[in-house]
Amino acid sequence: MIIDRINTPADLKKLNIEEMNQLADEIREYIIKKVNTTGGHLGPNLGIVEATIALHYVFNFPTDKIVYDISHQCYTHKILTGRKECFVNPSEYYKYTGYTAPEECNYDLFKVGHTSTSVSLATGVAKARDLKGENYNVIALIGDGSLSGGEAFEGLDNAADLGTNFIAIINDNDQSIAENHGGLYKNLKDLRDNNDKSVNNFFKALGFDYYFVKDGNNIKDLIEMFSAIKNINHPIVVHICTKKGKGCKVAEENREAFHWMLPHALDNDTDYEQKESYNSITNEYILKKAKEDKTVIAINAATPGVFGWDMDFRNTLGKQYTDVGIAEEHACAYASALAKSGAKPIWAVMSSFVQRTYDQLSQDLCLNNSPITMLVYWGGISSADATHLCTFDIPLIKNIPNMVYLAPTNKEEYMAMLKYSVEQTESPIAIRVPNIDLVSVGEEDKTDYSIINKYKVVKNGSKIAILGLGNFFNLGKEVADKIKSELNIMPTLINPRFITGVDEALLEALKKEHDIVITLEDGILDGGFGEMISRFYGNSNVKVLNYGGKKEFTDRISLDKLYAKYRLKPELILEDIKTVI
Amino acid sequence: MIIDRINTPADLKKLNIEEMNQLADEIREYIIKKVNTTGGHLGPNLGIVEATIALHYVFNFPTDKIVYDISHQCYTHKILTGRKECFVNPSEYYKYTGYTAPEECNYDLFKVGHTSTSVSLATGVAKARDLKGENYNVIALIGDGSLSGGEAFEGLDNAADLGTNFIAIINDNDQSIAENHGGLYKNLKDLRDNNDKSVNNFFKALGFDYYFVKDGNNIKDLIEMFSAIKNINHPIVVHICTKKGKGCKVAEENREAFHWMLPHALDNDTDYEQKESYNSITNEYILKKAKEDKTVIAINAATPGVFGWDMDFRNTLGKQYTDVGIAEEHACAYASALAKSGAKPIWAVMSSFVQRTYDQLSQDLCLNNSPITMLVYWGGISSADATHLCTFDIPLIKNIPNMVYLAPTNKEEYMAMLKYSVEQTESPIAIRVPNIDLVSVGEEDKTDYSIINKYKVVKNGSKIAILGLGNFFNLGKEVADKIKSELNIMPTLINPRFITGVDEALLEALKKEHDIVITLEDGILDGGFGEMISRFYGNSNVKVLNYGGKKEFTDRISLDKLYAKYRLKPELILEDIKTVI
Repeated sequence: MIIDRINTPADLKKLNIEEMNQLADEIREYIIKKVNTTGGHLGPNLGIVEATIALHYVFNFPTDKIVYDISHQCYTHKILTGRKECFVNPSEYYKYTGYTAPEECNYDLFKVGHTSTSVSLATGVAKARDLKGENYNVIALIGDGSLSGGEAFEGLDNAADLGTNFIAIINDNDQSIAENHGGLYKNLKDLRDNNDKSVNNFFKALGFDYYFVKDGNNIKDLIEMFSAIKNINHPIVVHICTKKGKGCKVAEENREAFHWMLPHALDNDTDYEQKESYNSITNEYILKKAKEDKTVIAINAATPGVFGWDMDFRNTLGKQYTDVGIAEEHACAYASALAKSGAKPIWAVMSSFVQRTYDQLSQDLCLNNSPITMLVYWGGISSADATHLCTFDIPLIKNIPNMVYLAPTNKEEYMAMLKYSVEQTESPIAIRVPNIDLVSVGEEDKTDYSIINKYKVVKNGSKIAILGLGNFFNLGKEVADKIKSELNIMPTLINPRFITGVDEALLEALKKEHDIVITLEDGILDGGFGEMISRFYGNSNVKVLNYGGKKEFTDRISLDKLYAKYRLKPELILEDIKTVI
Repeated sequence: MIIDRINTPADLKKLNIEEMNQLADEIREYIIKKVNTTGGHLGPNLGIVEATIALHYVFNFPTDKIVYDISHQCYTHKILTGRKECFVNPSEYYKYTGYTAPEECNYDLFKVGHTSTSVSLATGVAKARDLKGENYNVIALIGDGSLSGGEAFEGLDNAADLGTNFIAIINDNDQSIAENHGGLYKNLKDLRDNNDKSVNNFFKALGFDYYFVKDGNNIKDLIEMFSAIKNINHPIVVHICTKKGKGCKVAEENREAFHWMLPHALDNDTDYEQKESYNSITNEYILKKAKEDKTVIAINAATPGVFGWDMDFRNTLGKQYTDVGIAEEHACAYASALAKSGAKPIWAVMSSFVQRTYDQLSQDLCLNNSPITMLVYWGGISSADATHLCTFDIPLIKNIPNMVYLAPTNKEEYMAMLKYSVEQTESPIAIRVPNIDLVSVGEEDKTDYSIINKYKVVKNGSKIAILGLGNFFNLGKEVADKIKSELNIMPTLINPRFITGVDEALLEALKKEHDIVITLEDGILDGGFGEMISRFYGNSNVKVLNYGGKKEFTDRISLDKLYAKYRLKPELILEDIKTVI
């Protein structure tokens, strides 16, 4: 096999086109096998195999520099830059991340995992080169889907002005994670359909010199193009058309489903068991509600699959559905304006990606006190890659005025909050969709959530009070049981429900018969819920123990290890209690 | 005077063109007089007088809807919509904000003050209209400068796809706050120069139908255009060319200086007294350092004036200066990549505008641990308009891993931190530039800031320890004096210097001889410095009193009132101490 001879890009440069084509086939096979074992980004990686080979053939990395957008298409790059064991050797499958990572290899410039950043970053790389009087190519490789993100536009607008070597490769496979949305995509289609001969070229309008490769999976064509523009002395765009999922039939035909896939998804084409989940009850509710009320609208930014918003769901909602593309800033402002104009927007967003819209949360949404419903998914301490942690949403969302951030702990509570939120007209409401298995308590929650910051006392006790927030309410119960059994104390157990504020009357009342208050939250402690409680009790004799995550970027650490490190286990918490009691 | 007859847009509709021209002159005179008394946005408001008149003449607000970008050009709109007393009657000059405000008037849709939001918001308004089956015009009015912001692009990309009535008016005066930067601006120039006949029209590339008005200060031309496109059934752009500062010679000639002006700036053309300030010492240092080291680069996003980065400064730096335009996301990623590539970026940003870049701080910058220097200006509790508060930067920046956020308290400390930050290669460093008069202690600060989270004990005492952070260190000293004189206790006074972490050894040591720890911070308490200290002491007998701002949007409340409300006064803090001692 050719791949056996390839350890560095230098080895690649010795191959002829035919051998490189064969290498592409081999790489593709390894990627499919590996991703089907570990899970990961299948479609994006299969589409870019040839372009990556051509890039490494023509350019001289790491002297030349390349920044991958999201870097979810970097597998071939990793294979060609000394990390092929992670693909050819199953025992090493988990050795490297699925993203670029400078700590792995000096061919990688940045730790990247969020979208729309490559052009901005590459512009900085190019500017540093110019300041230092150095001379090499700087390339940003960005997919069509990522172009809708504000940071990508800000980067392009600035890169076009750079005046020196800068190469933006637009990897256009006519697909974001799901289908593309936005006016820009009509322009890309126009460029593809007309072999770049269209008037009103978006990239030319921004000032880029523009080049086009119709078959971005043809190594020969790509090498010709890259050789022609190598060492160019001004900012250019090379628009290449590739096939997402290329070489894997099911991935070519189901571009959304195989953008990112779970392990072994290629092995079966059967449906997964459809058990009730927070996704399923949410979507059932949205569909029903949207049918009754034509002002209900479901909004997301390019990740409908995360919420189980499949094509059926989208088609049923029709005009009551908006995928804004990768554009969380717009999603937030759009939802705010919809609510302010009397509609009922329900905006779903992953905890990790809500980070792309802080100012809009503050200014467009909360300052205007627009009564939207914002569903935050996957929030919690996470065993994910460092680029996709979901541990920071509480401090991000909680400390913005006017926001009401709710943390349900079971099915009925969640549904009551969701229904209340959609109907109310008082304020922006975010709900942290439980990131745990669905638990039903079998009894409707009749709480009036318009009375904000009212915590629920689940069990009255004394000496110790436990505030178990959202996902960690169950941990709170376990801690309560442990305290009871080991210390012979019946603690008070509280479900705070409101992340954004203090139930002053309750906390004040607790002082009488409690010496210790324990807070448990599924996120970093810094800037979070527990610290707010500590502040409240600062001037009192009540001792407060805060439990949650540490302010750090963890990288694929198992939850069990993280919980042990953060002392998020009943026996460890009990140990701590014993030291202060 | 015509203006005497104008109380609502209905009155305006009775005028002929000549009368409207006269009205424009009258309005202009009132705006100049008012702004020269109160300060405010002069240039943007003078440029848009005619367009606002034409809009109100042609459209039927508030049935038709208009969203102003930033809304710093809404003075004529306010005059025409029943709020003229705020301009014609000096005793009412302060009655209304300088921005749109729904609580003032139903012609205003949103509280707006940050940039690049109008298209997104208007898209939501239009979509709500469509969902409700209503029928009216929805207009976003956005300046050329605001188009560089990512949210504006995300909005345009989505608005183009709307399929129904949507009118984006591009108010192009060929100027951002300072001069424009970015490839887009060459396209706008091209469109202006060629009367819209250029190929590669940016707006057409996004899918908009496009209209052009060469003289956007000609009421007749504008009325013709607006009448022609009123009730259009798809998304369009109307590109109008206006003159910033029109009708005020000095503002026309000094478009940057009179974008926003202090009271009475029109009365004199003399220089302000040039006393030493944090701006002046920063800029002196940057110029010197940049001369010595060609990899030093000063970066900002369209607000150079805030930092005193005048044309001399920019020209002297030349290629070592980048104004990215209104594009904070890019500024952050760009700076990160520069640092990662061995350059020394110094990025200056206002506290209120750092909100536009959270994910980039987290992912592009901190996850990559890029050693940039970020200077945060104007951070602190503020008497500003609700849209421009600078009270939220501590929770925003502080809780991101790897970030080091420093709070200097005097000239020498600030300079030591700045010099250290620019030279170091360890981590991203943000410095909260003191938002108080410059104080020199006359002695060089020789602290090694590479030892992070080491607080400085300024005065050793007992019983009470005061942590006076940054701007509020002086308040800490006053509180210490008060404690000494009134309680006969010599408290410990500490300058924490590091916002981002706890000096555990010191805080642990304090436990021995201290019962009370007081924290003082110039920003909201929620998610801030003090809560972190409260968490630290939660399991101990030390009582902690946190002082800072409340989580709320305040609106033009004087500092004195806010300090009283937040008990940020020595006598009030002493009262509190007495209750817990």
